[in-house]
Amino acid sequence: MSAPFAERLAPYRQRLDDSFARWLPTAQTYPARLHEAMRYASDGGKRLRPLLVYAAGEVLGLPARALDAAACAIEMIHVYSLVHDDLPAMDDDALRRGRPTTHVAYDEATAILVGDALQTQAFHVIAADDASGIDAAQRLRMIAVLAEAAGSRGMVGGQAVDLESEGRTLSLAELEALHVHKTGAMIRACLQLATLAAGERPPAQVEALDHYGKCIGLAFQIQDDILDIESSSAALGKTAGKDEAHLKSTYPSVMGLPAAKVRAAELFESARESLAIFSDAAEPLLWLSRHIEGRDR
Amino acid sequence: MSAPFAERLAPYRQRLDDSFARWLPTAQTYPARLHEAMRYASDGGKRLRPLLVYAAGEVLGLPARALDAAACAIEMIHVYSLVHDDLPAMDDDALRRGRPTTHVAYDEATAILVGDALQTQAFHVIAADDASGIDAAQRLRMIAVLAEAAGSRGMVGGQAVDLESEGRTLSLAELEALHVHKTGAMIRACLQLATLAAGERPPAQVEALDHYGKCIGLAFQIQDDILDIESSSAALGKTAGKDEAHLKSTYPSVMGLPAAKVRAAELFESARESLAIFSDAAEPLLWLSRHIEGRDR
Repeated sequence: MSAPFAERLAPYRQRLDDSFARWLPTAQTYPARLHEAMRYASDGGKRLRPLLVYAAGEVLGLPARALDAAACAIEMIHVYSLVHDDLPAMDDDALRRGRPTTHVAYDEATAILVGDALQTQAFHVIAADDASGIDAAQRLRMIAVLAEAAGSRGMVGGQAVDLESEGRTLSLAELEALHVHKTGAMIRACLQLATLAAGERPPAQVEALDHYGKCIGLAFQIQDDILDIESSSAALGKTAGKDEAHLKSTYPSVMGLPAAKVRAAELFESARESLAIFSDAAEPLLWLSRHIEGRDR
Repeated sequence: MSAPFAERLAPYRQRLDDSFARWLPTAQTYPARLHEAMRYASDGGKRLRPLLVYAAGEVLGLPARALDAAACAIEMIHVYSLVHDDLPAMDDDALRRGRPTTHVAYDEATAILVGDALQTQAFHVIAADDASGIDAAQRLRMIAVLAEAAGSRGMVGGQAVDLESEGRTLSLAELEALHVHKTGAMIRACLQLATLAAGERPPAQVEALDHYGKCIGLAFQIQDDILDIESSSAALGKTAGKDEAHLKSTYPSVMGLPAAKVRAAELFESARESLAIFSDAAEPLLWLSRHIEGRDR
């Protein structure tokens, strides 16, 4: 653990790929086309959410093995949400992670089912991975927390509000509520799952990680709004300029681009400040917050 | 428990409605339109799957309280699957439970999100309902079994094969594989969840209930194929004659209507025979098998 977290990105991404290989049926399993499409949709991506889970685990002194199921489940939920969000009836996007979206590469019905089955599998992984060393009561709480974050009072609720809000100018409070649900809840859950995997911890540590998660979650979405304006589709691997095309309210549209950048920077800084309680052990999450802050896609 | 099971249908349906009222956010909860649509989609229906869970619980001597979460979760998965199956990209149906389908009553994006959130909530219910008296390890197994039945190797896989098979003539073996996945897995899971809620039981009892579940599951889908031909849309509360319109292989189309009826009757009989091991305690599941066998919708 003495090497900087940056050196462990590749091994952690490999662990995640191994988890997906283990928990997704092979592309030969009946029904083959569906399983092939599930693997297609799951390929690539920044894997930021699993990295947050693993980094939080390091801060809490957990072995990576204790976090594999949570990291995999979080990413499966994330991938399913991308597949459904890209559907014609939703954001109607043809490009994701630099490749055709699932409903373009396959068809719309398959994309709906791919998302459905990836969500199911996320809960299966936490329920069935009994080599994590985490006791059953904690794993149930992890499932409950993941479901809260992913469901109608979290991510899916945020997506519903996002679609309802197209063409309407939101207040800053409305926009923040939208972002906190749509993106923030799942990023916050990364930290919460790691905390639950660690069992009993001092409330101040739990609160510090939760504050970090809330700040990073909102900052991440403000950044997304900024990147949608400032980056190209080629750099993003998805369609740029979408928010304006869909008449979406964003932090830059509501408060102006410079103020949005200041707000994101403040949130990243607040996230880092909350980690002081962990002193040197905080390095993985400190590094990751800077890594996220510096991203260009 | 001495009154016949028929007298407990209404109380059990009420328990289920109470569970939905408890576990679905109110129609005023943010985002209100999504939660209203989730409640719209969840209204009505035969509630056969929850009744199977409760009936199996009675046969095993469990209090209804131990089965509320499983019954609710199974029905939430079922409702989500209907909402998604009815989408234009899937079976494209405008009528369900005698009312406009969710994407007709609301819109397509909302229907996708309603299904997504109902699935999430199903897992949340089992994870969060800690008043069931069932220990955490068993509840994890229940979540794993539900996920297996609902996922790509169960219900969603069956739906994928069903869509791929339109316009193609299936062999009887292919058709049975489709039905066992699409409808059978979730009905079998009703029995499996009740068995898990009961904790350790003699293997012969576990196997008897599993056999009952497998037979009822396949018989139910064969019946659906028959009803699609013989019933009217008004009686079904959903569009009749869909299979022929979609060029779907069905038991009647593959083996002929009379042979399909014989096959269904054999399966119902085989389901009942497996219950002999429970002697008089088998009444709820015996009654329910006859009730299902006699249904006209």
